[in-house]
Amino acid sequence: MVKVNPHYERLKRPIIFPIIEQKLKEFQGDDLINLGVGDVSMPLAFDIAQAMSAAMVEMSQEPIGYGPAEGYLFLRNALLNEYRHYGISTDEIFISDGINTDLANIADLFDPSCKVATIDPGYPVFGDSSLLAGKEVLCLPCLEENNFIPQPPSQSVDIVYLCSPGNPTGVAMTEQDLEKWISYAHKTGAIILFDAAYAGFITSSDVPQSIYEIDGAKSVAIEMRSFSKSAGFTGLRCSYSVIPQETGLTKLWKKRQNTKYNGCSYPIQRGAVQALQSEQASAQITAYLECASALKEALGQNAYGGVNSPYLWWKVPEGMSSWDFFDLLLQEHHILGIPGVGFGSCGEGFVRLSALTTMDKVKEVTNRLGAYAH
Amino acid sequence: MVKVNPHYERLKRPIIFPIIEQKLKEFQGDDLINLGVGDVSMPLAFDIAQAMSAAMVEMSQEPIGYGPAEGYLFLRNALLNEYRHYGISTDEIFISDGINTDLANIADLFDPSCKVATIDPGYPVFGDSSLLAGKEVLCLPCLEENNFIPQPPSQSVDIVYLCSPGNPTGVAMTEQDLEKWISYAHKTGAIILFDAAYAGFITSSDVPQSIYEIDGAKSVAIEMRSFSKSAGFTGLRCSYSVIPQETGLTKLWKKRQNTKYNGCSYPIQRGAVQALQSEQASAQITAYLECASALKEALGQNAYGGVNSPYLWWKVPEGMSSWDFFDLLLQEHHILGIPGVGFGSCGEGFVRLSALTTMDKVKEVTNRLGAYAH
Repeated sequence: MVKVNPHYERLKRPIIFPIIEQKLKEFQGDDLINLGVGDVSMPLAFDIAQAMSAAMVEMSQEPIGYGPAEGYLFLRNALLNEYRHYGISTDEIFISDGINTDLANIADLFDPSCKVATIDPGYPVFGDSSLLAGKEVLCLPCLEENNFIPQPPSQSVDIVYLCSPGNPTGVAMTEQDLEKWISYAHKTGAIILFDAAYAGFITSSDVPQSIYEIDGAKSVAIEMRSFSKSAGFTGLRCSYSVIPQETGLTKLWKKRQNTKYNGCSYPIQRGAVQALQSEQASAQITAYLECASALKEALGQNAYGGVNSPYLWWKVPEGMSSWDFFDLLLQEHHILGIPGVGFGSCGEGFVRLSALTTMDKVKEVTNRLGAYAH
Repeated sequence: MVKVNPHYERLKRPIIFPIIEQKLKEFQGDDLINLGVGDVSMPLAFDIAQAMSAAMVEMSQEPIGYGPAEGYLFLRNALLNEYRHYGISTDEIFISDGINTDLANIADLFDPSCKVATIDPGYPVFGDSSLLAGKEVLCLPCLEENNFIPQPPSQSVDIVYLCSPGNPTGVAMTEQDLEKWISYAHKTGAIILFDAAYAGFITSSDVPQSIYEIDGAKSVAIEMRSFSKSAGFTGLRCSYSVIPQETGLTKLWKKRQNTKYNGCSYPIQRGAVQALQSEQASAQITAYLECASALKEALGQNAYGGVNSPYLWWKVPEGMSSWDFFDLLLQEHHILGIPGVGFGSCGEGFVRLSALTTMDKVKEVTNRLGAYAH
């Protein structure tokens, strides 16, 4: 029998979605409001669908063939508009089929002996892909006492996964928060992998739109962004990574992508270009943010996040676990959240509610949850 | 500075495409016939484009959201038609965004100490991804004296990359050829990674349509197929891997995909289902095979392959290297091939010509190359 990668044994975290699915199967009721999975609830903007259909017609008239592993120049050049003023160039922007993929694959570039630090609670792929690569993983707790902002550890690490605006907490890092990390990275030689999947939701003036707003970030930070939430691309698969030359990793990533990847689908990239200028897509973000704001107001002072993010991080009533409160929300109020512990042990005591929904549903949630607002 | 993966240094093989591009830049002439890159020359079948456009419209009416990492059931069930009689079930079929990606990522499942054997000449990702994963790589020479069919080595290895119909040789393995490998795998405990990207081109009755036609294959072989060449999907990105439970690797792959991947684009999977029944797509395969047959006849007895494959593996005239002959074809005859040495050192002495072209072009090539037919 072939020897399998022993690190798969290290993925011991209970996968919560099958448990939730089972609970949903047993659930009785026809008025469930789903604030669980972080998926969009509005359809794809019509102009984006149209741009992709046009690309299909184009392909049925003339073959397009293999595209570049790094993505088409038409999309990378369009993205440059958001990055040019930081001194980023087209050959530092790489298109891919999803931020999940890039966050996991970037581990390929580093020596297995590298030590990783990752936020807890956080998007599971940060820790899981590091474990699978045989790396040591240190947790950066994001708790009520540090306003859910990860703090640089006292020890040195080689790789740091950060996410802002945060998933699941919905809390965004300010310029000052990020400056601490850039300074840490310069001191220790660490590389920051910055998951900015929710950058499109930023409205506060003290929250940087990009990590490259911080002086010195270009030599220590890789930024990853997605079209999934900002343009309803969850089922279409398109994202991008910015890897500045100053990190010393640009050529290595290019080599990796040209060896192990064959590029993102052509019509999807045509849709992504349209998404950058789609008024309907940006109106959707505004609508989701209005839902987040209304939900935050309804839940009261124990609800965090929800300002530069579609997520609310809601503290559970005293004496309950996040699973207890999940069950109570589901059984008594017919509302689906996600138990915070599913995002790491520091997520215990919270549930995540998603405002990627409609105002009607937020109003109904408000009616049902009146008793918990405080 | 962060420690990078030292195995990137092992990728020493010269990448030939930049060299070819440079030669093309310097090329004078406006009548070049490109038989180089293995890309389709016919447009996407109209019914496939239509199915994908319909999926776009659907998404603009109602959000589809994240799909399963393993691929949608509608596509996996449709593929089952080709695999059901081998006893394969839906949960052993995994959709992805390209065979290149799967061939590279499958390396994740194995212990770094595993020894790999791979065909030479062959698709570079077999060896490259193994080198990047720190594995030892043994070459399986495919030469004129073994009819370009890789033979089981005397020593044991853990993983074997095979490809049939072969790229670049265009030669397909018969039932007997494959039986030898299944028997070797049973004896040594090796896993066979079977690249069947060109399965759609098989017409000979002694060439199995799937490796699972061979008794005992299900416990030792993973088969990967692509829509790229069989349905003109090169720019769309869709493929699939069959990982039978008997290999003991199905659950591990499912875990890998659910951790590090978020599924193939929804409209592309809708197009793939249509491709399985598209008459226009299968007419294209027939047309490419006619080109291959005509080209083979024109080139004479020194041209191999081209029967169950769109590729011709053409022996260069005595005393010339594959680069010499590449240059001569380009400069004197304005025909672009690929020097065989680009696919591994055992490819020296050959050029690959692709018949993914039109009959008009094959006729013109025949006129220009008359002198070499023997």
